[in-house]
Amino acid sequence: MREKPTSLSEEEIENLLDHYKEWKLDKKDGKPIFKFEKEFRNFIEAFSFITKVALVSESINHHAEIWNVYNKLKLELFTHETSSLTTKDKEFITLLMK
Amino acid sequence: MREKPTSLSEEEIENLLDHYKEWKLDKKDGKPIFKFEKEFRNFIEAFSFITKVALVSESINHHAEIWNVYNKLKLELFTHETSSLTTKDKEFITLLMK
Repeated sequence: MREKPTSLSEEEIENLLDHYKEWKLDKKDGKPIFKFEKEFRNFIEAFSFITKVALVSESINHHAEIWNVYNKLKLELFTHETSSLTTKDKEFITLLMK
Repeated sequence: MREKPTSLSEEEIENLLDHYKEWKLDKKDGKPIFKFEKEFRNFIEAFSFITKVALVSESINHHAEIWNVYNKLKLELFTHETSSLTTKDKEFITLLMK
């Protein structure tokens, strides 16, 4: 059985963002979220990455919000269960960006 | 070579919406768009449909705006070239909903 996600400390968040430069800290409805924004070469490149997002999401049962039009992609990520950024978000980003 | 898309008449739009009940007429920045909103059983069902959206988009080079979180999906569609609803949008919807 999976462990309950625990909130990330400020230092853990900083380390994660330092390591994965395409991810930023943002706010949504007053709560912190991780945000990813990228313009790919074309739709094929963007959608290949979206497929990876889907596989990671489903494999750890943690689903990002996905927005796409043609080569543009935005992802928003946080943990609904705790309304915070947790070990679950870190796991998602780490798996996706490998 | 593909024909240039031509704007749909009001009657053509009505017929399309009559036929494909999950698609509605909406406005964005004062311009008409086709909008699709659906809640699927789960992410696997939603993403399977998104994959179909991607294949149709790429096959006719006409890309919808995609928004998804878990089982929820929104699509927005119009023809950038003409800033209107055209034969291209009709082709997209028809292929997707087959």
